[in-house]
Amino acid sequence: MAKITTVIDIGSNSVRMAIFKKTSRFGFSLLYELKSRVRISEGCYELGGFLQERPMQRAISALREFKKISQAYKSRKIFCIATSALRDAPNSKDFIKRVDKECGVKIKIIDGKKEAFFGAVACANLSHSRDGIMVDIGGGSTECALIENGRIKDMVSLNLGTIRLKELFFDKKLDLKEAKNFIQDAFNALPDSFVHSNIFGVGGTIRALAKLIMKQTNYPFDLIHGFEIDVKKHIDLMAKIIKSKEEKLEEMGIAEERMDNIQGGFLILSMLIERFKTKNITTCGVGIREGAFLVDLLRSHHYVIPNGINPSLQYLHDTFSFHQENKNLKKITLRLFDLLSSDFKLKDSDKRLLLMAGLMVHIGSCIDFYHENKHSAYLVKYALSYGFSHYERIFISLLIAFSEKKNPKDSDLQDYKMYSFDIYTLQILSYILSIAKILGSFYDNSIDFSYQQKRLVISGISDNFIILEKISRLARPKDLSIVFGE
Amino acid sequence: MAKITTVIDIGSNSVRMAIFKKTSRFGFSLLYELKSRVRISEGCYELGGFLQERPMQRAISALREFKKISQAYKSRKIFCIATSALRDAPNSKDFIKRVDKECGVKIKIIDGKKEAFFGAVACANLSHSRDGIMVDIGGGSTECALIENGRIKDMVSLNLGTIRLKELFFDKKLDLKEAKNFIQDAFNALPDSFVHSNIFGVGGTIRALAKLIMKQTNYPFDLIHGFEIDVKKHIDLMAKIIKSKEEKLEEMGIAEERMDNIQGGFLILSMLIERFKTKNITTCGVGIREGAFLVDLLRSHHYVIPNGINPSLQYLHDTFSFHQENKNLKKITLRLFDLLSSDFKLKDSDKRLLLMAGLMVHIGSCIDFYHENKHSAYLVKYALSYGFSHYERIFISLLIAFSEKKNPKDSDLQDYKMYSFDIYTLQILSYILSIAKILGSFYDNSIDFSYQQKRLVISGISDNFIILEKISRLARPKDLSIVFGE
Repeated sequence: MAKITTVIDIGSNSVRMAIFKKTSRFGFSLLYELKSRVRISEGCYELGGFLQERPMQRAISALREFKKISQAYKSRKIFCIATSALRDAPNSKDFIKRVDKECGVKIKIIDGKKEAFFGAVACANLSHSRDGIMVDIGGGSTECALIENGRIKDMVSLNLGTIRLKELFFDKKLDLKEAKNFIQDAFNALPDSFVHSNIFGVGGTIRALAKLIMKQTNYPFDLIHGFEIDVKKHIDLMAKIIKSKEEKLEEMGIAEERMDNIQGGFLILSMLIERFKTKNITTCGVGIREGAFLVDLLRSHHYVIPNGINPSLQYLHDTFSFHQENKNLKKITLRLFDLLSSDFKLKDSDKRLLLMAGLMVHIGSCIDFYHENKHSAYLVKYALSYGFSHYERIFISLLIAFSEKKNPKDSDLQDYKMYSFDIYTLQILSYILSIAKILGSFYDNSIDFSYQQKRLVISGISDNFIILEKISRLARPKDLSIVFGE
Repeated sequence: MAKITTVIDIGSNSVRMAIFKKTSRFGFSLLYELKSRVRISEGCYELGGFLQERPMQRAISALREFKKISQAYKSRKIFCIATSALRDAPNSKDFIKRVDKECGVKIKIIDGKKEAFFGAVACANLSHSRDGIMVDIGGGSTECALIENGRIKDMVSLNLGTIRLKELFFDKKLDLKEAKNFIQDAFNALPDSFVHSNIFGVGGTIRALAKLIMKQTNYPFDLIHGFEIDVKKHIDLMAKIIKSKEEKLEEMGIAEERMDNIQGGFLILSMLIERFKTKNITTCGVGIREGAFLVDLLRSHHYVIPNGINPSLQYLHDTFSFHQENKNLKKITLRLFDLLSSDFKLKDSDKRLLLMAGLMVHIGSCIDFYHENKHSAYLVKYALSYGFSHYERIFISLLIAFSEKKNPKDSDLQDYKMYSFDIYTLQILSYILSIAKILGSFYDNSIDFSYQQKRLVISGISDNFIILEKISRLARPKDLSIVFGE
């Protein structure tokens, strides 16, 4: 039985719950998520930070329901953390007592550094990028953390947030300049080392930006986590939204619930981009909740998932149980790649993705054996949530989709123009995968390969007409011939 | 660890292997399938049925490989059965000895009745239809079995097959009339009770017909098992192919490997249709191998899967582990259905499909929680292999896809015109499902429903603003209003 863990976080804007299912030592997946727009800090920035009675009641009602749902999922642990809104509230202790008594949930207030740490642990372990500054713009505070080669170097929490800005400046229709000065002052807390071309973008503000851009550009892949934003191309969009009247926001495609805090959020983000000299934002669908879960999971591993382990791959393996034959398949894949790589200009990064494709090429049979390829490609595309870029997920899924099928053509890639896949590389790699799939089921040590001048020789299979038939039928990439030796 | 079972059958045309994975008492799924076009009976119908040396060698080579693969899948049992080709061969005993010695595989020759029984057990248990005549046209023999209400009433094996006809008539360019007379003679073995509007179509000939029709009609759902053929609409196509020159077959879209036996197959089929007065063919992707597996699985159950159990649903449940909340969801679904059914003219069959949708609405979260609906719909469509018609699979998957989303519109159903779904029924049912999903997570006994004059009243949730928010946001079907009571 999988272990189920719940993380609840009480932010200024929403109370959110994530329930995680752990399937093996490092394999896990998000089982359930729920948010309630409690706005616990409503009205409090103007009133010395004191939590108000109605928002507190909303929070208690939400937490009571969250607890019930968590129990229905047979969750064994609940971590409930609270951030800026409770940190700043003089009456937070009373609230915590009430929640404990009325809901049976123990809230732990974490300081800004810890909050930044949780977000950074999530990004460092679950994003495909290894370097950048984690930025989590919340309702009451904004956390930043510098990540280098997957390690967290420094963290800081700024007293800046979307609700805070809204109540102090936007609601009062004050000049934008005053908000900017306020933000600039808060930036004094940022260390000088915080300069980086990449931002890991956590939280609702950056997710909203990603959604807007995906819509505007007809992005073919409806997934937030891992979506890359080219700052140069989209900085004007942010500027436009910051200056818009609130009435105009709906026309521009802003979701209703995001309407009243997106301007403050974009203002903070665009000023951080300038300050950090950032060129690219890696959107992160993960954040403080995944971080809190990982900090518990990785407490004896220095908060780093060991090298070579991917939690989604592990989860897929645990859930959809791969076949036995993959060892042979891997061996053959590597051998063929090494033989062909120099002539066909294959890169090391191609090798990694090809091996991933080999690992997952059969998982689709758990949906329907007769359309294994299609379903394996689907699972790679949609279930390989953590640690892969969109480019990588689509590349792997294309390799699988084309294996033992027709050669990929330009028209097959029409949806994915922005990735500029090299069609010839796809052909060669999916051909390697096809041969490895066929021989993977039959492998014995008598099979050998050699290669010279665009001729691949496979020997030791001449008496196996099932293999011969299957390999002969494969669509070959141009400029490669195949010969069966003794 | 799941139990793995292998079934190999040696037919006149091909040797095929299917490997099944059993996930619980009645839950199973096809893990792997492989065929090798051995043509064991090549040349033998002209030579007194004696198996020839080269075909025997091909069979031995194939069986050796099959055995290896079966072992790689950690299969615990191998059933290897042989049909017509070995039944008729005077030298079959020698062949069986050689296979045992050289491959370690024990072949069991089954008689025609048993062959018909296996096919019938597969159709009766794994098709959505409960009544009809199972027809399995093979290379050397054709099996028929009468099935009434899921029970097998009578079985017969005819000495008619595609390879037999080819060698005796088509290869010799004899007049079609002679083949027809030969078939008509063989029909004398058919009992008079074999008359039915429905044929369960098993085997390559009928699969080839289904594929042709799916291609010609742009059928939107690339699945053989469960595909229905309206005889009246397509009988001319068969007649045309029977009379065509072999050269013309490729143009008509016949696969190469099917080319040399499709005419004999269609001739037998069209004459059986006439004889049985058949109006509809239910294409079966299952046959003798699934039957042999089921006969072992169901040996203490009179070869019938117990009422109310569906092996694919069970398999999905075992593999993708549904959530805990489904009991509440089911209770609420039933209650709402009963309240609304008479006013909105909902049928009993709608209820069954709605309950199925409720059972599977959350399974997609195992792929990606954030797109649960989409993935649940995908899994229903593609993984619910046995016991559901295409109409039912698509209907259930639409209910899930639309739940908690926009109201379905005609344009959403464009691909599925041939099913003539009632859009308003879909709206009502997916609305019921949406409410049941939302309340299913929160259910407590204080929730109650009442309904009068197109007004649905939900009481006992007025203090739960998460629920209120979610239900209020749902797209409602027209003519239904919703009120929250105390």
